[in-house]
Amino acid sequence: MPDKIKVGVLGSTGSVGQKFIQMLEDHPYFEVTEVAASERSQGRKYREAVNWILTTPIPESVASMEIKKCDPTLDCRLVFSGLDASVAGEIETAFAKAGYVVVSNSKNHRFDANVPLLIPEVNPDHLPLVKAQPYGKGAIVTNPNCSTIGMVIALKPLLDNFGLEAVNVVTMQAVSGAGYPGVASLDIYDNVVPFIGGEESKMETEPLKILGAFAKDHIEPLQMKISAQCNRVAVIDGHMEAVQVKLKKKATKEEIINAWRTFKAEPQELKLPFAPQPVIYYMEQDNYPQPRKHRDLGRGMAVSIGRLRECALFDWKFIVLSHNTARGAAGGAILCAELMKGKGML
Amino acid sequence: MPDKIKVGVLGSTGSVGQKFIQMLEDHPYFEVTEVAASERSQGRKYREAVNWILTTPIPESVASMEIKKCDPTLDCRLVFSGLDASVAGEIETAFAKAGYVVVSNSKNHRFDANVPLLIPEVNPDHLPLVKAQPYGKGAIVTNPNCSTIGMVIALKPLLDNFGLEAVNVVTMQAVSGAGYPGVASLDIYDNVVPFIGGEESKMETEPLKILGAFAKDHIEPLQMKISAQCNRVAVIDGHMEAVQVKLKKKATKEEIINAWRTFKAEPQELKLPFAPQPVIYYMEQDNYPQPRKHRDLGRGMAVSIGRLRECALFDWKFIVLSHNTARGAAGGAILCAELMKGKGML
Amino acid sequence: MPDKIKVGVLGSTGSVGQKFIQMLEDHPYFEVTEVAASERSQGRKYREAVNWILTTPIPESVASMEIKKCDPTLDCRLVFSGLDASVAGEIETAFAKAGYVVVSNSKNHRFDANVPLLIPEVNPDHLPLVKAQPYGKGAIVTNPNCSTIGMVIALKPLLDNFGLEAVNVVTMQAVSGAGYPGVASLDIYDNVVPFIGGEESKMETEPLKILGAFAKDHIEPLQMKISAQCNRVAVIDGHMEAVQVKLKKKATKEEIINAWRTFKAEPQELKLPFAPQPVIYYMEQDNYPQPRKHRDLGRGMAVSIGRLRECALFDWKFIVLSHNTARGAAGGAILCAELMKGKGML
Amino acid sequence: MPDKIKVGVLGSTGSVGQKFIQMLEDHPYFEVTEVAASERSQGRKYREAVNWILTTPIPESVASMEIKKCDPTLDCRLVFSGLDASVAGEIETAFAKAGYVVVSNSKNHRFDANVPLLIPEVNPDHLPLVKAQPYGKGAIVTNPNCSTIGMVIALKPLLDNFGLEAVNVVTMQAVSGAGYPGVASLDIYDNVVPFIGGEESKMETEPLKILGAFAKDHIEPLQMKISAQCNRVAVIDGHMEAVQVKLKKKATKEEIINAWRTFKAEPQELKLPFAPQPVIYYMEQDNYPQPRKHRDLGRGMAVSIGRLRECALFDWKFIVLSHNTARGAAGGAILCAELMKGKGML
Repeated sequence: MPDKIKVGVLGSTGSVGQKFIQMLEDHPYFEVTEVAASERSQGRKYREAVNWILTTPIPESVASMEIKKCDPTLDCRLVFSGLDASVAGEIETAFAKAGYVVVSNSKNHRFDANVPLLIPEVNPDHLPLVKAQPYGKGAIVTNPNCSTIGMVIALKPLLDNFGLEAVNVVTMQAVSGAGYPGVASLDIYDNVVPFIGGEESKMETEPLKILGAFAKDHIEPLQMKISAQCNRVAVIDGHMEAVQVKLKKKATKEEIINAWRTFKAEPQELKLPFAPQPVIYYMEQDNYPQPRKHRDLGRGMAVSIGRLRECALFDWKFIVLSHNTARGAAGGAILCAELMKGKGML
Repeated sequence: MPDKIKVGVLGSTGSVGQKFIQMLEDHPYFEVTEVAASERSQGRKYREAVNWILTTPIPESVASMEIKKCDPTLDCRLVFSGLDASVAGEIETAFAKAGYVVVSNSKNHRFDANVPLLIPEVNPDHLPLVKAQPYGKGAIVTNPNCSTIGMVIALKPLLDNFGLEAVNVVTMQAVSGAGYPGVASLDIYDNVVPFIGGEESKMETEPLKILGAFAKDHIEPLQMKISAQCNRVAVIDGHMEAVQVKLKKKATKEEIINAWRTFKAEPQELKLPFAPQPVIYYMEQDNYPQPRKHRDLGRGMAVSIGRLRECALFDWKFIVLSHNTARGAAGGAILCAELMKGKGML
Repeated sequence: MPDKIKVGVLGSTGSVGQKFIQMLEDHPYFEVTEVAASERSQGRKYREAVNWILTTPIPESVASMEIKKCDPTLDCRLVFSGLDASVAGEIETAFAKAGYVVVSNSKNHRFDANVPLLIPEVNPDHLPLVKAQPYGKGAIVTNPNCSTIGMVIALKPLLDNFGLEAVNVVTMQAVSGAGYPGVASLDIYDNVVPFIGGEESKMETEPLKILGAFAKDHIEPLQMKISAQCNRVAVIDGHMEAVQVKLKKKATKEEIINAWRTFKAEPQELKLPFAPQPVIYYMEQDNYPQPRKHRDLGRGMAVSIGRLRECALFDWKFIVLSHNTARGAAGGAILCAELMKGKGML
Repeated sequence: MPDKIKVGVLGSTGSVGQKFIQMLEDHPYFEVTEVAASERSQGRKYREAVNWILTTPIPESVASMEIKKCDPTLDCRLVFSGLDASVAGEIETAFAKAGYVVVSNSKNHRFDANVPLLIPEVNPDHLPLVKAQPYGKGAIVTNPNCSTIGMVIALKPLLDNFGLEAVNVVTMQAVSGAGYPGVASLDIYDNVVPFIGGEESKMETEPLKILGAFAKDHIEPLQMKISAQCNRVAVIDGHMEAVQVKLKKKATKEEIINAWRTFKAEPQELKLPFAPQPVIYYMEQDNYPQPRKHRDLGRGMAVSIGRLRECALFDWKFIVLSHNTARGAAGGAILCAELMKGKGML
């Protein structure tokens, strides 16, 4: 225990904050020592202030903690930020300036030139970008949007092996992606909502930075066209994505599936605690993957793919599923921090 | 009343059969005089044999009818077929040979060279194809697949005004499309199933015949590429489709919306009872259309479109919604029969 | 048209307010001439201010109205109040004092001694209570809680025919009962919530006043014990209630069913527009009634009952279903106003 | 591994059979060595024959097993039966006669005089009843109905401490209780079904045997009246029950809660692998327990209770939740077998 890195959670009572606390329970590297939130909750016991929405109990050690202010005076080395975008930008900067390492799930700093937009299996080589940050031992690392992450993990082996020319995606996203209370039951029950504010733009731009080339103090974005359409469906957790790709090089079905199944990266080599093994499940069954059945594979950190088939308009089409609050939010951010630890940056 | 055309419903206890009976209640042209079904139900009162799944009561006049065999000895001029594809082909042929007009919702005869695959607003000019049929006063007319219909109605004004080069579609389809008992609750609750047997192939081929050119005894299919991905979501009624199109001619957003909003065709001119007015609702609100809110517009016969926006890979993308058991099945077939009546073919 | 009574809707943008506006479209007695709401919406066109959650379009005549303040300066004779309980009390009093007839769906005045708590089929004789009110031509009439109404309509014929000693009820209530946004999808999807604030107390007290005896300036409550347990389930509209009763007089199953099926009251005799005929559907099928299939019977104003069977602990047990936003809120209140009109009090 | 008891699963491809296989993975006492099922599946690999509906992968060791006939020639000492009631009776008898220990989840033998109807925490003293069976080293032990188990675990501490006079229960049961495909999505989505065939009768009779007195070759049933009403709701797993009790002895709220919280029994003392600790969670939060949040407590073997409050008609009312396929079916049966092992009967 004495060796664990002290961790604070910003926005700890929100839906992403809760997921951080749930996933950090008994973590081998990290120990939650501080929980912080907005004024309304400050000074209260976590157990009393939170409207806990998850299906496992609040970890005992956190339940009795007092909620602190989101000020850079917390007793920890690392903070995970689940703050709302309306306040995340400034608070995260303040923490970095004060020497904390910040791993954020918010969108605010994702496109800062010197901030890595990190998926540990996809662009671990972007992590040194933090050296270009003016924060001394402080740093900001960001986690992409939940709908971006699953797709980009599926694309990475294709890019590496066959090159990518164009990507088309239509999503069917879970309600947990909207936080809590988030989507009203009257809005989604027996319904589909064909709009998620800002989501399509994120899916069309974030992959280009993530898949881009490291250039010392910035990233050269990948040149590629992406078109995204985002829909909300009546699913609790797990984003489904119908993806179509145009490749630079001919590939057979077997070659593609093999590229997915054998995909691994630095997190797997470093045996990071949250690094799923395999990263990608390719499923042969016609009607797989499915959110309820497969979102929890690899503790919610694996990506499931199915239905690879030829496409009349692109080269290939397939279905991607990933857990939006595990891999797509808290778990993804924790893996970023594990990577930093694994590379001696924490 | 004496002037109404006598109508039989084949497969009357199934989910499509029920929808026929519901929608034909108090119809100004047609009067259900016969209900037929498989052996299991024959000889029983409709009320007792049916597991009625709709949300309006069984029409009184039908409730007490005795269910007949699906033999061409029914006392009617016209039959609507909601038969399962495993038996529909031969039974429908037998009825046509015996001089009945058959309007079928089954897939069996859709690609017969001399059988119209009819959406009354889209290809009313295909109806004379029945003259090439060897059935005398009998005839077979077919209704396309439920997921095809909404999309093709949305495409028709684009084809007419701007030309179509390519269509990409990803569907989110309602469970009622699978009939009854159809989709198990354990399979779809909190879930998406990314596969519907045979559906993608139907969506990639049927539009080409429907939008093709009448050529006396067959249809010259439209030359165009379509790629379809079909998903089942937890919605009761109403298929949503994320559509992308490449047009032959440049068009502005206003021109496209105007083409949709002003679209009308023979059924509207003939003031057919089930012809919706307008045919297409274009909705400005970002998060519209939605199945639960808009599927019933125009008695379930209108098509709702929203979110028209430019696309990085095609020219335009948008969302289409149509009611899969009204416009997409029973209602669509009834409108086919109304068109025949309106044109003096019944 | 000139003869219609002018009507205002208070709280018109809320979920109950919307239901009033939906149900008043083309009403033979009433015409919505004013819509009022909280400050946030005042001065805006109804169409633009409202987040319309219903599945039929906003009535054209209302869509373009300007939203007024909830002040007793509206141009109408009657107001329907769908105001939140936090503000309803004072506003409704102000309107009554100013000479308006107020029919309210809020709880604030329900237990005022001189205010009728009215279900038109159950206690139309309580309506003269308004004469004890100090409001001149103004008046306040209240509609009971949504879960009370269905149950009390089912109880009334039992009380009249056999006497009631005790009532036990466990509810399974729809999410629309909580208004909008109301119940978060994350709270109710794949879930049951065994608590609805204040609901059990309402169900245990309101029936006693409704079923009590008119005594000129107050109501003598019925002496009877009621125990209620209220649960929220994943249903959009329609409250289900498992009811058990102890009767004063022996009754056979046939006598009870007959009492329900033949039940009618002043609204039916007056042929009021919203008075359902029959009031109560008793359904023989084992698994009926069901919210999705039967909530809309009688335009949502009828009550459905099923599964009457003997009980080891009480005399009888059965299932009651009623539409919580039609019969249980807006429709119930409109029928109250129709009754006043029918009795020459409007 | 060599010491593990060999186990067969009858009805292994059904929903209960799958749950057995899922829950027996890595079990410390038992090892699945045989899977048997109906003719349709015999001779096929388990992986290929099963339509796996659970959300964790098929255990590797079972996936490749060949499915056998349900004949008493299986290589195992113990069989768990998830057979359909239409065939379970005879097959289970045949296995017992052949010397197998049978732990069954089917209803067929539950009321055989010499067969224990066992909830290990409630009536472990009934287990010696098997000595009255004519099967030598074979035996039949049965697990109660899923809706019975949760309620009886909640009642047992009340019976022991305060005595029970009457029990009233209304259930809201999950769809998984109906097996697979079970409840059609069109039947339960946005709906409640107020009927489950045979369920009310089971809930009114099984508790009396379970809570009855051991009498060497039979059980003297408890004398008490129970009234049950059973409803199906749109929940995947987890039966909710609104329970009311009349006690023989006065009790305070604190005494009752204390009786629940301190309840433990032989399985806990023997530290059986599936014995939850605590057995019962009493939850203070007004809106707890909830199926989605609490069904998995204690690996799905714990029972959650909440909302204890006084009742106008009984003494007390409260809400009980238990996991219907874990505690209520496969897990409950496994705990029965663990108890037999713990008591040296296996």
